Amino acid sequence: MKNFTFLNPTKLIFGKGTIAQIANEIPVDVRLMVTFGGGSVKQNGVYDQVKNALKNHNFIEFWGIEPNPRVETLRRAVEMGKTHDTNYLLAVGGGSVADGTKLIAASIRNAADPWEIVRNGNLVDELIPLATVMTLPATGSEMNAGAVISNDATTEKFAFYSQHPQFSILDPETTFSLPHEQIAYGICDTFVHVMEQYMTVSGESPLMDRWAEGVLLTLIETAPKVMSDKHDYDAMADYMLSATMGLNGFIAMGVTEDWATHQIGHELTALHGISHGQTLAIVLPALLSIMRGQKMAKLLQYGERVWGITQGGPYERSEEAIRRTEEFFRSLGLATRLSELGIGESTITEIQNRFTSRGSRHGEGRNIDGAKTAEILRACL
Amino acid sequence: MKNFTFLNPTKLIFGKGTIAQIANEIPVDVRLMVTFGGGSVKQNGVYDQVKNALKNHNFIEFWGIEPNPRVETLRRAVEMGKTHDTNYLLAVGGGSVADGTKLIAASIRNAADPWEIVRNGNLVDELIPLATVMTLPATGSEMNAGAVISNDATTEKFAFYSQHPQFSILDPETTFSLPHEQIAYGICDTFVHVMEQYMTVSGESPLMDRWAEGVLLTLIETAPKVMSDKHDYDAMADYMLSATMGLNGFIAMGVTEDWATHQIGHELTALHGISHGQTLAIVLPALLSIMRGQKMAKLLQYGERVWGITQGGPYERSEEAIRRTEEFFRSLGLATRLSELGIGESTITEIQNRFTSRGSRHGEGRNIDGAKTAEILRACL
Repeated sequence: MKNFTFLNPTKLIFGKGTIAQIANEIPVDVRLMVTFGGGSVKQNGVYDQVKNALKNHNFIEFWGIEPNPRVETLRRAVEMGKTHDTNYLLAVGGGSVADGTKLIAASIRNAADPWEIVRNGNLVDELIPLATVMTLPATGSEMNAGAVISNDATTEKFAFYSQHPQFSILDPETTFSLPHEQIAYGICDTFVHVMEQYMTVSGESPLMDRWAEGVLLTLIETAPKVMSDKHDYDAMADYMLSATMGLNGFIAMGVTEDWATHQIGHELTALHGISHGQTLAIVLPALLSIMRGQKMAKLLQYGERVWGITQGGPYERSEEAIRRTEEFFRSLGLATRLSELGIGESTITEIQNRFTSRGSRHGEGRNIDGAKTAEILRACL
Repeated sequence: MKNFTFLNPTKLIFGKGTIAQIANEIPVDVRLMVTFGGGSVKQNGVYDQVKNALKNHNFIEFWGIEPNPRVETLRRAVEMGKTHDTNYLLAVGGGSVADGTKLIAASIRNAADPWEIVRNGNLVDELIPLATVMTLPATGSEMNAGAVISNDATTEKFAFYSQHPQFSILDPETTFSLPHEQIAYGICDTFVHVMEQYMTVSGESPLMDRWAEGVLLTLIETAPKVMSDKHDYDAMADYMLSATMGLNGFIAMGVTEDWATHQIGHELTALHGISHGQTLAIVLPALLSIMRGQKMAKLLQYGERVWGITQGGPYERSEEAIRRTEEFFRSLGLATRLSELGIGESTITEIQNRFTSRGSRHGEGRNIDGAKTAEILRACL
């Protein structure tokens, strides 16, 4: 096991009717800004619950943080926060709202432009505390310090790291009105988060392996239930908890991580606006295939423990594990090939050039460069 | 899934050579008391590492916190802390030192006697922050808010809840000099911690089930390695991480807990001074057998997923799961019967009378009273 430091101070408040607890968690004397996405929370009752919980607080509202939150939008929120001297932020929505709000919290009390902060976290002197009401299980942003921000002007998308939310409220009932495809993207996103922390060096931590496999097995068992009945409270709760536990550090203690699938997927989103979860469904199976040599021992363990594959030689078993993974993504209604989305060689070349010019070396072994990325993307066609 | 709130703010610093990090974690201007057990840390080099890390700190030392820490000992530490106006505590040792130090931290700035505080946590106005260097994997005290304190005068042993450590340092190398039986007790303690959170209502959280089973499977796989070679770093690291994760709330989200095995075991320790882990090895198999009706669905799941038991009817499979559990404890060199320790009917009657007079009702269904406890203890003979 590798040495590690683990710290996750977020208070997780989970269950039916818990949005009312905002009232006790946010001091009444703060200057609060509540941030939202496009307005679905006005249809599903979440906005009313938040407003009711905050009836003794003064707050301003910022609306319009979009999927793959754009720095252009967030700059407007930062200006609003500076004007009102905001000193507490509450994000209400999905991972994009939480991610965008992390950048707002890092920018209000700082002179640097938000995009400079994404590119260089050292520019941040002071963070404003934030909390979330999470309505779309997927990113784990409600219980980690990360965020992913897009820049329309440069068609770039990058992760940055700042702070954990003070608290996050997850009421599975808020997910009942999610569109079908959002649930599919979220399940795939969670699945791949786990794989990025699990499908690497073999034997580093048997306990973390079991926990990662536990999230994967829970997703596989839960997916058909949540895809067929969004109002199955227990199934949505199981999925929601899995999404949070998939990316809050709980399965990453002492193990090597990868994240190349995400890095490549971010480029597909930046260039073509493809949903994040959809990009991962396309990239992961091909990446596992191309990086098979490096990942073979863990692929065989994954095949056996997650998919019950025990027959055949190592190559056949690894092939079957990858096939079952792709089949699982297809069972969610997702595309798993670039060609299905009309993407071909010109995009592959563009991403190869980007990675080459940045000197990018991704993956667990830092051996996925521009050329290797092109090889992986060609295997996605 | 039941509603829940999860919060665990302890910073976990894990791995080889990490004791030196104390220097950066404790402010140099605090009035620090470092607490110890009986002196084994002077033999194994841990004391020197701590002293070296604290070379720029002023601190006083309190020695002699024993296994099953006695309030009589802790009162002396509290007096010393009051005299020196101690405002930061560092516990160096096993779970008993950590537990005892939690009571010291709750008592120094308060007027109530420490035993009154154990019996009524509401008496505490102010807690002094504490941290730990954990050298004996077992109790999880390094990453939870609980502690168990004994009272010699009344031959009682009770749990109380106060605060999480600010940080805990776990270097698996510090365990290399542990006596063989301490490791056996620790593995059993960890195993039963997990069972107390897992072997209850079926189907509440598939993810928590998988994570609990993950700890159990890791313990079962790791136990022969750590029992045969205490210097196997990776095996000791796997066991140490399992012990912490077994009782830090990570496997208890949204599920029903039990803890009757611990409540009964505490009485055996209080009356006869039997090591905590040893009491659990005796009580758990009998409790599973007597409470089989209530726990049947989870017993079958446990049998299948942890021990691979798939043949036979429900009763036979549950019987085999209990038998394998007892066999595992025996493989650690532990007794699993009261009669092996010369304990019989008079102790059973004493514990029954204690529970009856206190009006105790333990277990997941609050249906283990004095009479049911006697039935369980007779099954341990």
